[in-house]
Amino acid sequence: MRNKSSVALADVAGLDIDGVGLDAQPLGVRVFERLRGAILDGGLAAGSRLPSSRVMAGDLGVSRNTVEWAYGQLVAEGYVIRRQGAGSYVAEAPPPRDQPPASVDAPLSNRPPRTLSSRAKALEAYPGHRGLSLGAAFTPSLPSLEFFPRAIWGRLMREAMRRPGPDLWAYGPSNGLPELRSAIAAQVAAGRGVRCSPDQVIVATSTQQAIELAARLVTEAGDTAWVEDPGYVPSRMGLESVGLKVVGVPIDSEGFSLEAGLAVAPEAKLCVVTPSHQYPLGVEMSPARREALLAWARDAEGWILEDDYDGDYRYSGRPLAALQAMDRSARVIYIGTFNKTLFPSIRIAFAVVPEDLAQPMINAKHVADGHNGTLAQAALAEFISAGHFATHLRRTRAAYDERRQALLAALETLGGAVTIGPSDGGMHLAVHFTFACDDREIAAACGRRGVEARALSRYRIAPGPPGLVLGYACAAPSRIRSAMAVVKDAVEAARSAA
Amino acid sequence: MRNKSSVALADVAGLDIDGVGLDAQPLGVRVFERLRGAILDGGLAAGSRLPSSRVMAGDLGVSRNTVEWAYGQLVAEGYVIRRQGAGSYVAEAPPPRDQPPASVDAPLSNRPPRTLSSRAKALEAYPGHRGLSLGAAFTPSLPSLEFFPRAIWGRLMREAMRRPGPDLWAYGPSNGLPELRSAIAAQVAAGRGVRCSPDQVIVATSTQQAIELAARLVTEAGDTAWVEDPGYVPSRMGLESVGLKVVGVPIDSEGFSLEAGLAVAPEAKLCVVTPSHQYPLGVEMSPARREALLAWARDAEGWILEDDYDGDYRYSGRPLAALQAMDRSARVIYIGTFNKTLFPSIRIAFAVVPEDLAQPMINAKHVADGHNGTLAQAALAEFISAGHFATHLRRTRAAYDERRQALLAALETLGGAVTIGPSDGGMHLAVHFTFACDDREIAAACGRRGVEARALSRYRIAPGPPGLVLGYACAAPSRIRSAMAVVKDAVEAARSAA
Repeated sequence: MRNKSSVALADVAGLDIDGVGLDAQPLGVRVFERLRGAILDGGLAAGSRLPSSRVMAGDLGVSRNTVEWAYGQLVAEGYVIRRQGAGSYVAEAPPPRDQPPASVDAPLSNRPPRTLSSRAKALEAYPGHRGLSLGAAFTPSLPSLEFFPRAIWGRLMREAMRRPGPDLWAYGPSNGLPELRSAIAAQVAAGRGVRCSPDQVIVATSTQQAIELAARLVTEAGDTAWVEDPGYVPSRMGLESVGLKVVGVPIDSEGFSLEAGLAVAPEAKLCVVTPSHQYPLGVEMSPARREALLAWARDAEGWILEDDYDGDYRYSGRPLAALQAMDRSARVIYIGTFNKTLFPSIRIAFAVVPEDLAQPMINAKHVADGHNGTLAQAALAEFISAGHFATHLRRTRAAYDERRQALLAALETLGGAVTIGPSDGGMHLAVHFTFACDDREIAAACGRRGVEARALSRYRIAPGPPGLVLGYACAAPSRIRSAMAVVKDAVEAARSAA
Repeated sequence: MRNKSSVALADVAGLDIDGVGLDAQPLGVRVFERLRGAILDGGLAAGSRLPSSRVMAGDLGVSRNTVEWAYGQLVAEGYVIRRQGAGSYVAEAPPPRDQPPASVDAPLSNRPPRTLSSRAKALEAYPGHRGLSLGAAFTPSLPSLEFFPRAIWGRLMREAMRRPGPDLWAYGPSNGLPELRSAIAAQVAAGRGVRCSPDQVIVATSTQQAIELAARLVTEAGDTAWVEDPGYVPSRMGLESVGLKVVGVPIDSEGFSLEAGLAVAPEAKLCVVTPSHQYPLGVEMSPARREALLAWARDAEGWILEDDYDGDYRYSGRPLAALQAMDRSARVIYIGTFNKTLFPSIRIAFAVVPEDLAQPMINAKHVADGHNGTLAQAALAEFISAGHFATHLRRTRAAYDERRQALLAALETLGGAVTIGPSDGGMHLAVHFTFACDDREIAAACGRRGVEARALSRYRIAPGPPGLVLGYACAAPSRIRSAMAVVKDAVEAARSAA
């Protein structure tokens, strides 16, 4: 008869809690089920008060979140009543046992699998991840985080947060903070030859978002888009998710070819290219090819999305300016990102659009997700304007060049097994096998030993020669050398089997 | 004959710089055009070195960004050559004059306006904005930023930034940080009765993004969705932008009606509702209506998107749990947001999805924009877990209740001109005019005097009775009273004209 009295912790001491990770579901479910069982058994009497989640958590050695989750489930199912400011009590009349509550851990397990949309199905080809992807050598497009000046960034964020007034905390402009758009316009003019006013800059969370928003504006659902083959899978998926038919155009040593594009899909309305440093092959689009593509856009009223994802890195040779710089017909949408030059979790990228696309892009961003977070935008504007961005580019250019050279040297150990693609710029290079093999098997063998050497076939739409894509920005030279020893073993095993 | 020598500042001192805002384009364009003119005139000789952008900026009294933008344009157009580490020089052979460079300020002005896509056209109905929207009284959905504990947030952000290791700076999990998903699962269980494990939580940037991603997964392009009429315009636009046919279902005093939905579009596959506090009318969906809708979803294999945008605020009466809490068929996708409870520029919202939708949502978020920024996620997880979120809700609930009562009292001054909609919860209420009038005219009259009283007809698909939507969270009681005097003038003017 503990009615109205507090439940002793001993009542729940039988909980079978073992070393499950704190955020795993089963622990909360077990706490929930044990408590529910005790209520149904009468071990926890109607009207009795449950310990606070803090006390319960401390005693069980689990997180308060876990206990609160379990309590929340008990409330939701009617076993427990929460009284504002007075704690949680076992309900006077728990749900009847003949009407069993829905199980919280496996409510769908007894049902046949449900069919989602064809759009959901298509996304299975490029699954998202649940964990942090910290990146081993040779993850492409991952910057080295050790060079980022965290202390400076921390100070700039602090200054933004301390700025008086509500501006940086309220709803922000759909296209981004004016000071950031000005800084970006200056930066891309100086660094990439891009011509624009700040009004043509639209801040987005990522290259992906910028591509999707722009693609929607210049195409109808059902239109055809050319993409590079091999190419960047997420942009292909993004184009498909906005209703486009995507056709791969084979890439050669001069990059994207209009002629090849017209041969496979003359009806294309949009061309998505990486002219500065083709992803993943690393070739630079030739001036003649650029001129031909721009002439197509002008004459066919087509559009070009220029994904300049790592054009800030160039180590040798004379870089060409962005394709946008040559555009006289306002048919190029230029896309850049800080997620690769600064740090991935900053989530700031941008599009530079022709003037008459600026307001439509603002509208599209507004409906898609309102605007980017403004505090980080203010910090980034100052980071660029005060010269920290230029300093960071200088520092990482030198470091990545050293890593690139370490990779080129390490690749010598593979002997004649590979030829090496262009490596004048960017954060990765591609190698091509000189013998018949399955590049996915070689990649898998590397993966089993902790080295991420991506199979070139992962990036292909049509089958093509095997190879590997090797990012060098994220790994120090010593790590590059030790990781290459792993690649070498995998390549030699494949070669002797061939 | 200043060949190879530095350009004196006097060479560009004739620049006609006046008080144009620092980030405005014309200033940069004028710097650019003056320099280009000097190069073409021979005033700046081929091969001469330009002053550094810092020196030039200081001398002209403009920002470095402005000068760098102008220099970038000169580089892009071939007038100036940048030599790595050695400064900028006037090109030896500037572009011939008979081939005039594209104007940078108005490249499109001589062209006929271009037609963008029908999707771009549709977005014109809900234009994004270029400025900060700080919100006057009575902006709906805008929280009061004065209550947000900025110092605590600053500390938590600092702690996140100081956490050792690269985790919070690299690519993050597509569905959000595990610690944040756990905290959200606990919070929505305790606060809203939502049943879920952390694995069912997907972190997004906004309600909008969550709606778009989820809608794509459970519908095909061309399917029909029911939305509330009147209702939240951005979610309607978002559904349209993912290819859905949107049909408005009239809202009455019990909220969304399945019967009314079936009458207008029996083929609907998706229902988007605000059951806790209908946007904008403020009614709560009745238990009978909830049961009917859930039964429809179960039997017709339909889907429900529950937008619980301000369900954390309840001032009187007994709140119902979220619709998701009653769902036994795993057909409800629950969406919550911190952009309204904490501060808009945090850009963190979330979806709680049935288990079999979790991986598809991860995939969709992955392709849409990778993942949310991880530093703010870490700070928010700690903000919730340490109890600051609960404290903030308590504090703002009390403040908003006071504001709500001030608004209700102030509305008395309108006499019989309006009836007042439900005001038990949320951050706004709706009033309905008791006489024939154009609510947009009344809203415009208020707007001219700095008061944002939104016309109810703005939210309608089909025409309906006139009214106003009044947000009270963002304004102190004294401001509510003074703003209501403005509304009163506008209403009385309309009434005497009626």
